[in-house]
Amino acid sequence: MKIGVIGTGAVGGYYGALLVKNGFDVHFLLRSDFARVRDHGLLIESVNGDFVLDKVHAYGTPEDMPVCDMVIVALKTTQNDHLASILPKITGKDGIVVLLQNGLGGERDISKIVPSSSIIGGLCFICSQKINPGHIRHLDYGSIRFGLYQKGGPSGRESLQLKTVADIFSKSGVPVHLAENLEKARWEKLVWNMGFNGLTVILNATTDQIMKNTASRTLVRELMIEVIAGARACGYDMEDKFADTVLSATEQMPAYSPSMKLDFEAGRPLEIDSIYWRPIAAAEKHGCDMPKTKVVARQLDFLNRAHK
Amino acid sequence: MKIGVIGTGAVGGYYGALLVKNGFDVHFLLRSDFARVRDHGLLIESVNGDFVLDKVHAYGTPEDMPVCDMVIVALKTTQNDHLASILPKITGKDGIVVLLQNGLGGERDISKIVPSSSIIGGLCFICSQKINPGHIRHLDYGSIRFGLYQKGGPSGRESLQLKTVADIFSKSGVPVHLAENLEKARWEKLVWNMGFNGLTVILNATTDQIMKNTASRTLVRELMIEVIAGARACGYDMEDKFADTVLSATEQMPAYSPSMKLDFEAGRPLEIDSIYWRPIAAAEKHGCDMPKTKVVARQLDFLNRAHK
Repeated sequence: MKIGVIGTGAVGGYYGALLVKNGFDVHFLLRSDFARVRDHGLLIESVNGDFVLDKVHAYGTPEDMPVCDMVIVALKTTQNDHLASILPKITGKDGIVVLLQNGLGGERDISKIVPSSSIIGGLCFICSQKINPGHIRHLDYGSIRFGLYQKGGPSGRESLQLKTVADIFSKSGVPVHLAENLEKARWEKLVWNMGFNGLTVILNATTDQIMKNTASRTLVRELMIEVIAGARACGYDMEDKFADTVLSATEQMPAYSPSMKLDFEAGRPLEIDSIYWRPIAAAEKHGCDMPKTKVVARQLDFLNRAHK
Repeated sequence: MKIGVIGTGAVGGYYGALLVKNGFDVHFLLRSDFARVRDHGLLIESVNGDFVLDKVHAYGTPEDMPVCDMVIVALKTTQNDHLASILPKITGKDGIVVLLQNGLGGERDISKIVPSSSIIGGLCFICSQKINPGHIRHLDYGSIRFGLYQKGGPSGRESLQLKTVADIFSKSGVPVHLAENLEKARWEKLVWNMGFNGLTVILNATTDQIMKNTASRTLVRELMIEVIAGARACGYDMEDKFADTVLSATEQMPAYSPSMKLDFEAGRPLEIDSIYWRPIAAAEKHGCDMPKTKVVARQLDFLNRAHK
C-alpha cells in the first residue's frame, strides 16, 4: 500500500515520519523543502523520543510521485488551492484521501477534485512545529480523531476505509479515536480553535495567559458559547456546558501557542477562512449570527493583511 | 475670577496655558510634575504657534490652592477617584466645574462630590500630547463642545454658567460649540471613540491604517452602528447613517493615534470604564446588548492588565 503525504510540516512531517518508521511505504511531496529532505531525510525531535530518517521518498512535483492508495493532506488550509492540480495526479482509483486540517469545508472541496475517492477527516490534537526544512519538533499530545466524510449524512465508523486509516496510524503509535459524526467532531474542535486561536494572535498571549486573566477568560468562554450555538444551528447536538469542559481541559495544559499564533509569528498566512469564516457562514445559513466571533475574524483579517 | 486646573497634561496643560496667555487668573494643581512646572512654567508647542509661560501658579496640594470660581477637571478618567478629596477643597460655593473628559458618567460622579456646583461637560476635539512635565505638544484640532449637566433632563444652552465658560475659552482662542443636550453629545463623541480607540490599541494601528483595510473599516463601522443603537436605546435620536458621516470625516484626517493608543504606548492605564463599560451598561439597562463592543472592551481589559 502506497501512502502519499502532501505537506511535510509540523503535522504531515511528524505523522508521515512515524508511518515510515513503522514500516509503511510513504512518499512525500515537497516544494521549498524538497532538496533538503531529499538529501538529508527527516529529523523528528519528540517528547516520545527523537529519531532520524536518513532517507525518505521525496518528490518535488506530483508528476514524479507514484500513484498512492492513500494520500494524507497536511497542508495549511491557506494552501488548499494547490490540491486541484495535485490530488488527481497522485490519488489512485478508489483511493483514500485523509485530510489532517482544522476548520470546515475541506472534505467538500476535495470531493469535487477527486469524486471517486473516499475522504477521511482527521482532527489532530498535537503541538508540533517545523523548526527547519525536514526538522520537526513534537512538543506535546499527538492523538487524531478520524471520521468518514459522507455528503449530507452522518459518518459511520463501520466504513472499511476508516478502519484502514485508523489501523495504519494506530500501528504507528498514534493514539486514534473514531468520530461517529465527522462534522460534529469538527465543530467540537472548533469550539476550542475559534475560542483560542484568534485571541492568542490578537492579544499576543499563550493559552495560559488568556486563562489566567478574568477578562480574557470571560471572552474566550463567550466566544465558545457562540460556536456551540452555531453548531446547534447546523444540527449538531451540543450543550453550553461543553465550553466549561473544554476550558477545564485547557486549564490542565501548559502554556500553549496554537498553530495560528505560530503561523502569525512566522509570517505565514493565517487559516482564517477555514477556522472562522466558513463556520460563521454555515451558522448564518441556518439563521445563527455570531457577532463576537465576527469581531475576532475581522481583526485577524486586518492582522493577516498587515502581515503580508 | 479664579480658575483652577486639575490635570496639567495633554488637555489641561494646553487649554490652561491658553487661558493664562489670554490674561485669565489660572491656578494649576499638580502632582508628579509640580516641581518642574513651579520652576520652569509651561512650554506649549502648537500648530497655532509655540509659546512659553515662564511662571504659572503651580501647587502641589489642594490645601495650598486658592478657592476657585471655576475648576477645570482634565485628569484621565482613570484618576477620577482623586476628585473626592480635591474638589470640595478648591471649588467655591456655587462654583463651576468644567469636565474635559471623554466617556460617560463623570458629571454624575462630580455632582455627588460638589452638589451645589454647576457642572459643564466639555468634549475636546484635539490631538495633543504631554511630551515631558510642563511640555505639551498640540498637533491638530482643538475645539470644545460644551454642554450643561442637568440631572435627568436635557441641558439648555441658556445657562449663564455655560455662557461664562464658553466665553472664557472662546476669548482664549478656542473654537467653541454648544450642545443642546450634553448626554447626546457625549454619545455622538462615543461613536468615534468606541469605534476607533480600542481598535487602534488592539490592532496597533493608526486611524488611517484602520480606514484603509476593508476588514477593519467594516469592523469599525459595525462597532459604530452598535453604539448608535445604544444611544437610541438610551433615548437619544441618532440614525445609523451618522456612522458614515463620522467615517467620512475620519477619512479626511491624517494618520491619528487616539489618546487611548498614546496611553497604551506610554504604559498608562486605559480609560476603558468611562469609554466602554459605562456606555455598555447604560445601553444594557435600556435593553440594548452590544456584543461586538464588549469583545473590544474585554480585549482592552486584558491588554490593560497585561500592561501593569
